[in-house]
Amino acid sequence: MEFYTFEETKLRSFTEQVFQSMGCSEEHAVLAADVLIKADLRGIDSHGVARLTGYVRLWEKGRINANPNIRIVHETPSTATIDGDAGLGLVVAPFAMKVAIEKAKNAGSGWIAVKNSNHFGIAGYHALMAVEQDMIGFAVTNASPLVAPTFSTERMLGTNPICYAFPAGKYPPFITDMATSTAANGKLEIAQRKGTEVPTGWIQDQNGNDTIDPHGLKQGGSLLPLGSDREHGSHKGFGLSATVDILSAVLSGASYGPWAPPFVAFMEPLANQPGQGLGHFLGAMRVDGFRPVEEFKSHMDNWIERFKNAKPIDESQKVIIPGEPELQAERERKVNGIPLIDAVVKDLNEVAAKFNIDKL
Amino acid sequence: MEFYTFEETKLRSFTEQVFQSMGCSEEHAVLAADVLIKADLRGIDSHGVARLTGYVRLWEKGRINANPNIRIVHETPSTATIDGDAGLGLVVAPFAMKVAIEKAKNAGSGWIAVKNSNHFGIAGYHALMAVEQDMIGFAVTNASPLVAPTFSTERMLGTNPICYAFPAGKYPPFITDMATSTAANGKLEIAQRKGTEVPTGWIQDQNGNDTIDPHGLKQGGSLLPLGSDREHGSHKGFGLSATVDILSAVLSGASYGPWAPPFVAFMEPLANQPGQGLGHFLGAMRVDGFRPVEEFKSHMDNWIERFKNAKPIDESQKVIIPGEPELQAERERKVNGIPLIDAVVKDLNEVAAKFNIDKL
Repeated sequence: MEFYTFEETKLRSFTEQVFQSMGCSEEHAVLAADVLIKADLRGIDSHGVARLTGYVRLWEKGRINANPNIRIVHETPSTATIDGDAGLGLVVAPFAMKVAIEKAKNAGSGWIAVKNSNHFGIAGYHALMAVEQDMIGFAVTNASPLVAPTFSTERMLGTNPICYAFPAGKYPPFITDMATSTAANGKLEIAQRKGTEVPTGWIQDQNGNDTIDPHGLKQGGSLLPLGSDREHGSHKGFGLSATVDILSAVLSGASYGPWAPPFVAFMEPLANQPGQGLGHFLGAMRVDGFRPVEEFKSHMDNWIERFKNAKPIDESQKVIIPGEPELQAERERKVNGIPLIDAVVKDLNEVAAKFNIDKL
Repeated sequence: MEFYTFEETKLRSFTEQVFQSMGCSEEHAVLAADVLIKADLRGIDSHGVARLTGYVRLWEKGRINANPNIRIVHETPSTATIDGDAGLGLVVAPFAMKVAIEKAKNAGSGWIAVKNSNHFGIAGYHALMAVEQDMIGFAVTNASPLVAPTFSTERMLGTNPICYAFPAGKYPPFITDMATSTAANGKLEIAQRKGTEVPTGWIQDQNGNDTIDPHGLKQGGSLLPLGSDREHGSHKGFGLSATVDILSAVLSGASYGPWAPPFVAFMEPLANQPGQGLGHFLGAMRVDGFRPVEEFKSHMDNWIERFKNAKPIDESQKVIIPGEPELQAERERKVNGIPLIDAVVKDLNEVAAKFNIDKL
């Protein structure tokens, strides 16, 4: 496994060209590329340009509409439902978050359920849009079914992430952006490439037995909900993942549970879909809907400082404030570039050849 | 350890008398008793009348105001901050949820940050108030510091529960009501009484080593965040617990992190409190702010049925829908009574003697 490093601007321009070649407008291509590049900059490689060819394949299958008519289909002063018209989630979700922010400006908060969408990239991108407006951001989505509920062997839920983002003062925003499974699929892929085992508690085989084989998922197994087993609270991880599924899909009119359309184009969505496409749920709350912004930020700084100084188990590893490692990666990669593994570069260059654009 | 069983009505009347003896109005006493009895009925014994003497001791210390002037101190159409005036959380939180529901009726959703409160009982009580109005309910609270962040030995956070509740059609409401630690404190107490060990991954000792001694917490150890260790996602449990702390306390103006006032009256709150009392965060969203109620409920029924029928690992244990075991307990205990252990009955009868009311 070799790495090649690319300047952000080069990778961004390449990604924009791919989306434009799919027929996206320039505006949509720039936005969709921004969401993917943000993931790469923040070190969340599994959700960056490594996924670009996946979107292309879904578009080739007719499952992504490059020119969607994204529209509000239902609303109140602080809530709305949006139909993504089978567009890229990378474009649909920022549209929805803009609506949430506008509603929050007027009503204090805005909560948007989205149906008929596709994979929206990193949840953090959308939640951070709210933080830029001195709001609290919330973003969840359902996803390809890979996770079994506690007591079951069946893949019924996605890794359904939960993201909350809060502005701070002198510190970077506090942002949790986490899969509700014990391990995200990206971690299995790393172990598969390296040929190493995975810890117990990450996956079970098709009979519900713990397995340390990173290929266990491909062989009919499933990811385990956060908590890993009942004794360690996997019913809580299941409850959180189920909550995300209900907010994102049952509330919006998207497809839920095992019917959530898979991201991989070689798997067809199940028959008898109960809704349309994937679903998201996004929220924005004005900080000054609760207390003055400067007061809140100063207490956030105090919170962060106190937690940074929590007594460590080992002096060499202090408490990590959620969001800080990602921001450090972003600063570093903006200067030193974004590393991609050879397999991803090869995939991307095949797409380039197909669309007759310059290779990376 | 022996159990005594009491009729709901008897326990309710006793609890109301205790709160009235503290100086609560009849209305507040009835409400506070209802929250505690609901926990006992639903089988969440750690949060029911077993806690009543704890509230009395806090009141004796002057840390609970039996006649609070609970009031909105800041608001927008869909948000508000409420000052609980050091009242019982059992009374303050339902007040706040009523405000959330009223705001939701007008603006689609209502989100209330609460400061200067105390322990609010089970989160589920408050969230279910919204469900009765065909709304989605959300309730979180910070709590006595018992949980260490990943990589730390210091108790910085409470077991900070997260509760979401959704109405369904022919099925009972879907409700997740979970501590964000791997194990709740109540489970340790059970092991302590039984003299049994606890699983690894529940608690660490004062040096950050895993321990199976259920007394480890009392000996300077701490509870572990959901996920138990870094490899199994404890940073996610920490992130969720931190999010609850920020929503409940940093946003409202309550005391956060290690400053959260302890529930046990023999421990004084830390000096230099950054806010007032405990904090909660409650929300209500109208289902029909997103799609018609009957449509939503019919898809919730479909969701629940599909998950009930997920392929089980073992035919004798099907997937459990969050909220169902609690409802079953409620139906059973309404008929057969509420069991209390002898130690709790003894405690309650000491309170009865103090207030000169009839013993249980």
